[in-house]
Formats: sequence, C-alpha cells, structure tokens
Amino acid sequence: MEQRDDGRETGAPPGFPKNRMEALTDGIFAIAMTLLVLSLDVPAGIHDPSGATVTAMLASQLPAFYHYLLAFFILASFWIVHHVQAERLRHTDRTFLWINIVMLLFVTLVPFSVSLIGDYPGRIFAAIVFEVNLLGLGLLFAAQWRYATHNRRLVHPGTDIRRGNQRVMVVPAVSVIAILLALAGWTWSTAAYALIPLVMRFLPPGR
Amino acid sequence: MEQRDDGRETGAPPGFPKNRMEALTDGIFAIAMTLLVLSLDVPAGIHDPSGATVTAMLASQLPAFYHYLLAFFILASFWIVHHVQAERLRHTDRTFLWINIVMLLFVTLVPFSVSLIGDYPGRIFAAIVFEVNLLGLGLLFAAQWRYATHNRRLVHPGTDIRRGNQRVMVVPAVSVIAILLALAGWTWSTAAYALIPLVMRFLPPGR
Amino acid sequence: MEQRDDGRETGAPPGFPKNRMEALTDGIFAIAMTLLVLSLDVPAGIHDPSGATVTAMLASQLPAFYHYLLAFFILASFWIVHHVQAERLRHTDRTFLWINIVMLLFVTLVPFSVSLIGDYPGRIFAAIVFEVNLLGLGLLFAAQWRYATHNRRLVHPGTDIRRGNQRVMVVPAVSVIAILLALAGWTWSTAAYALIPLVMRFLPPGR
Amino acid sequence: MEQRDDGRETGAPPGFPKNRMEALTDGIFAIAMTLLVLSLDVPAGIHDPSGATVTAMLASQLPAFYHYLLAFFILASFWIVHHVQAERLRHTDRTFLWINIVMLLFVTLVPFSVSLIGDYPGRIFAAIVFEVNLLGLGLLFAAQWRYATHNRRLVHPGTDIRRGNQRVMVVPAVSVIAILLALAGWTWSTAAYALIPLVMRFLPPGR
Repeated sequence: MEQRDDGRETGAPPGFPKNRMEALTDGIFAIAMTLLVLSLDVPAGIHDPSGATVTAMLASQLPAFYHYLLAFFILASFWIVHHVQAERLRHTDRTFLWINIVMLLFVTLVPFSVSLIGDYPGRIFAAIVFEVNLLGLGLLFAAQWRYATHNRRLVHPGTDIRRGNQRVMVVPAVSVIAILLALAGWTWSTAAYALIPLVMRFLPPGR
Repeated sequence: MEQRDDGRETGAPPGFPKNRMEALTDGIFAIAMTLLVLSLDVPAGIHDPSGATVTAMLASQLPAFYHYLLAFFILASFWIVHHVQAERLRHTDRTFLWINIVMLLFVTLVPFSVSLIGDYPGRIFAAIVFEVNLLGLGLLFAAQWRYATHNRRLVHPGTDIRRGNQRVMVVPAVSVIAILLALAGWTWSTAAYALIPLVMRFLPPGR
Repeated sequence: MEQRDDGRETGAPPGFPKNRMEALTDGIFAIAMTLLVLSLDVPAGIHDPSGATVTAMLASQLPAFYHYLLAFFILASFWIVHHVQAERLRHTDRTFLWINIVMLLFVTLVPFSVSLIGDYPGRIFAAIVFEVNLLGLGLLFAAQWRYATHNRRLVHPGTDIRRGNQRVMVVPAVSVIAILLALAGWTWSTAAYALIPLVMRFLPPGR
Repeated sequence: MEQRDDGRETGAPPGFPKNRMEALTDGIFAIAMTLLVLSLDVPAGIHDPSGATVTAMLASQLPAFYHYLLAFFILASFWIVHHVQAERLRHTDRTFLWINIVMLLFVTLVPFSVSLIGDYPGRIFAAIVFEVNLLGLGLLFAAQWRYATHNRRLVHPGTDIRRGNQRVMVVPAVSVIAILLALAGWTWSTAAYALIPLVMRFLPPGR
C-alpha cells in the first residue's frame, strides 16, 4: 500500500499512514457541523400560532440561521480542502499531525462562536470572535499546506503547489477584511465571507 | 484500487475516491440519528409515581416518541439509499461532493425540526417545518442521483438508472402530499410518511 | 475483495459490503457511549466546599455514576459482540441492514434511559424503562445473529453457530429477570446485570 | 491482509483486526474533543457591550478556556499515542479490546471533569477530579502498552518497547505530582501538565 511509504525499511524516521488522521478529522468535522444546529433555539411560548406570530418567530431566527448556514458551508469548504490536500499526501509525520490537531481545535470552537453570534446578533464583539476563529482556522490550514509542500516534503511529485498556496490564503485574507470592517464599526461584517465562492472562481483548483 | 479511477493518468480533471465522503456522511448521519434522542425530555417532577402518573407521563411523551421513530427511520432509509447509491459510483467529483454537503445540511436540521414538532405537537406550522426539511433532503438526494447518473457520469456501467430515478422521488412526493394536507388544516399530516414502506414495496430496488 | 462476494456476476440479488454498516454502527455506538456522560450533572452550588459538602455531593452522584458505568460497559459488550459477529460475515443484505438499524435505535435510546434512571434513582418505573431498553437491544442482536446464521446465509463456513446462539440470549434473559425483580417490587433490579460477566465465563466464545 | 494474521488457519484462538477498534476509538476521541466546547458557556446578559464589559466577560472565561485547551491537547496527545501504538500492533485480542474500552471510559469522562473545573475554577476538589481522571486515563494507556508488548504478544517484531514504556508513564507521573500539589493546598495544580511537552522532549519516540 502506498500509505506505508514511510521509510520503515530504509531506517529513516517513520512516517504515518493517512487513514487515522482522516478518521479523526472527518469525525470532528462531522460533529462540529452537526452541533451547529444546537445554536438554533426551538422558540418557546408560541401559544397562539397565528400567521403573524409564526412569521415573527421565523424572522427572529433569521440571523442565527444565516450564521448557521455560513458556518456550515465554511466548515464544509475546509473539509473539501482537507480532502483534496490529503489526496496529494504520500504520508504524514508528527509535525503535520500536530498542525492538524491545532486546526481541529479551531474547528471545535466554531459551534461556540456561532452560538455567541446567534445570541448577540448585530453585536460587533461577537462578529469579531467569529472572524478571529475563522482566521485561525484558515491560517492553520495554510500552515499545514506549506509544511507539507515545502521541498515537496509529504506530497506526491507532480502536485501543483503554487495554486494550492494561493487558495489556502483566501479565507485568512477575507477574515482580515471582515475584522477590519467590524473594527470600523460595520455591523454585518460577516457578510464578507460571501465573497469566497466568487474569489475561488478565479482560482480553480490545480492538480 | 478501483477508487483511483480518477483520470489522473489521462490528464482529465481529477475525481475523488469515495471513502472520505462516505466517512463524513456516515458520521453526520450517526450523530444526527443519535442527537434525535435529545428531543425526548426526561420528564420532571414525578414525585408520586403511581401507576396513573407514570401512564400520564408516558402518554405525554407519545407524540415526541412517534416523531423520534419517524425521523430515525427516515434518516436510516436515506442512509441505506446513500449506501446503495455509493456502491454504484466509480468515484465522485467536486460537484457531487457539494450536492452531498447541501444534503448533509438538511440532515443536520432534522434534530431541530423534530425538537420543534416535539415541543409543539399537533401544531401545523411545526409539521410544515418538518415536512419542508424532508422535502429538501429528498430533493437533494434526487439531485445527487440525477447528477451521478446523467450520461452515466459517475456510475458503474450496468447500473439500473431508471428504477433509482423512481425511488428517489418517493420522499419528495410524500412530503408534498404531507405539506398540502397540513395546509388544508389536517393536524397529523406527518402520518403521510407511513406510506413510504408501502410505496417502496411496489418499487423494488434495481441492480 | 472478499466483501464483493455479492452475487453481482451471477445475477443473484446484490449483497452489500460490510464496511459502511460498520462505520454507521461504530459512529452511533461511539456517540451514545460519549453522550452517557451528559447524564452526570455538574452539581450546582457548592459554595462551601468543605470535606463534608464534597463527600455529600459525590455520594449524591453515586447512583447516576453506577448506571453510567453499567450502561457504558453493556454498550461496550454489545459493540464487541457486533465486532465479533461482523468478522464472521461474508457480506450483508438489506434485511440484515434493517435489523441492524432497529438495533441502533435501541442503542440511541440508552442515553435517555440512563438519564431517566439517574433523575429517578430507586424508582421502579425508571428501572423498567432501562431494562426494557436493554431487552429490546438484546433481542435485536439475537435476531440479527439468527438471521445471519440461518442456513449459514451470510456467515463464513466454519463459524461456530451454536455457541453464538447461546451467548446472544444472555442479555435478553438477564433483562427478563431484572424486569421480573422490578415488578416484584425490588428497587435495585438493575443490579442483575452484574451477573453477565459471570455467565459469560461459562460460555466462552467459539470460533 | 496483514490484519488477518489471527491464527484462524493454525487453530490458535482468533485475534481481531485493528480497524474497528480504531474506528470506535477515533469516534469517541473526536466526540469527546468536540464536546469539550460545551464547557464554554456563551455569556448571558451583555446588554451594554462597552469595551470594559467585553473585557470582563473574556476575562471571566479565561479559566474555562485554559482547561479547555489543556484537555484538548492532552486528549490529542493520547490520540497520537494510540495512533503510534496501533501502528506497532499486528492485531488485537479480547483482553486488549477490554483495556481499550476502559481507557475510552476515562476519555468520555474528560468533558465532565472539564465542566466541573470550569464551574468551580480555583477549587481544589474540582482540580483533583480532573487529575484523577487523567491519572486513570494514563494508567490505562500504560496497561494497554504493557499488555501488548509483554513477550511481544501483539506488536511487530523490531518495536522499540523500552522507549514506549518510558513515555507512557509521563502522564501518570505528572498526574500524581498534580494531585499531591492539590492536596498540599496549591490552587492551580493543573498547571503541572504544562511540564509534559518539556519532559517528552527528553524522551523522543522510538521506532
């Protein structure tokens, strides 16, 4: 199996196969993406569900729902990036695993950030916590890619490193823009993340 | 490995192996199916557990329990469908992964819908939220299947596409019926989903 | 791969490989076993943590902790049984998958039963709910094994069916005893489950 | 497959392949690491989010956040150790699986311990519960390694057993130190765990 290309026979320090890192990562992504739903509160006390009450209820959930969708799709994008990057890897090593684990720490914080922003819609400090969370997550992904591709340390030969380098910087850059917008007093700074699919269109994935 | 049939050698845009999509999907289904249990409240204040009190308690939990069972078996059915469809796939691609992710979004919403309907038993707006959730889930499954089978894009040759096309439309059709029943003022419109096993009996799975 | 021994070439109805059933099952077991911890409440209001207060606090958590341990090890035992049974399988089929799914339904109910018994320690109705849950779980495991081994339908030739048949009946039998003890008015009927390791000692696993 | 090196052909008692033990373990680690985030409370009632209020809020969350980070990285370290140990295994057996399951019991208790210490920051009894939890977890890991390596029972030939023996005793030793510090009345005894990366630097992993 290609995953065992870990130097064990050559006396070099052993690498690790990818499958368990993928299992832990898939598990944490799956749980974090599912726990997001806990940030949606079942509204209490709709004793008179007239059309007006229900409409008001649904309207009051809209900011929470918007950030639920935003966080879900951002986590999903990162998961796809992880999937694509892992395809390029020959194997992992301890440093790579630790970068991956710090990255997962930021993944587990996302449900907390989304709950905070859902409880404090339109408050700048909550938006900044959310954006700093995504900034950290994006930087860790970038660090992981840089580490893996430096001197083609862990990736298959023939991997298009440059395009990957550009793509991993999109979320950190958008996060910095969003934080600056928030600091400038703009209430809905998290809308900046809607730029991502647009930007990615100009940076199609390489091989 | 057959999963590596991704065009890498031929210069075509790369496909993805199925295993990690399956891992994320299995994880999210497992978590959503387990989180459903949180919609069952441990009843408080049974200080005098006489037969009458306990019977009353159990009776008060019946609607929540009915929707728990309903949601569990519907999610389980979708999981089996996903399992069966994935067996027919040669590999996936980015578009397929994104359809899968939107489908998973509707999966993660099911525990929320079930909690809502458990807190508001017999209320039409809660039934409609639940049914719209399943309509969306069903349509995404149908879209995923159509995408994969169009011109046999991703499926193994020899797959029985027509029967699959019929089966994926059952849940959306039943959901539309249930929504219409709810809009007509019928309180227990979610009972319509009990039709599914009956209908499926007339549409046995193809190869 | 042996898992593809599914008759596809011979025109027989297709079987399914085992890996995804295992993934869903492992996921649901892992989540249910981890959610059990939510039945342990962090005690509130220890403002004066003298030795006496802390001792009283720990003592008040003992019944919840006992049932936490009990449920954890029972779920773990079932997981090991599933693991061992799956090793004997050549492949699965739709009926087997559905039995597995109903079994998983009872797995997801265990955290609810444990919470109930934790909130109502020493109450007979809570013990009965817990024991009925385990009875259902045990019967489904037995049914799954019987289905798989009937005429050696799904198992590898050479599997020791008789010993497996004896072992899968232990939990249902102990559950019936526990329910009878509860109905006879015995408060700590769940202690009957402590018999299981003893009984299993006389029924060592076959090949 | 090497995983089938289980003696089935030779008449010896069967061993088990590693993959499902890894799946259950990865699932429980992933869930426990993600549930830790529930120990972070979304602060309520920030009606006047001036700079001072937000700073006070963030400051009040610092102890909870510190123990969140601590628990996350300790669980991550154990997961990496499990990963590395599993690479050395040829297969597992029933005893090994049961040691693994008791170890997982301590993993699922970590979110409870962290919630306790988050609700009672600076209280010695909460620190001791947390430290006893990690002591148990560490001892189980040590026992699992000793069992697997005794007479090279389950490990590949050529595994460096002595270095592994040293490394698995670090967390138990640090836990004993932390418990002694707590019993001596030191409030922040959990800071002792910051020693671990330092100690590990002097015990680099063997082959």
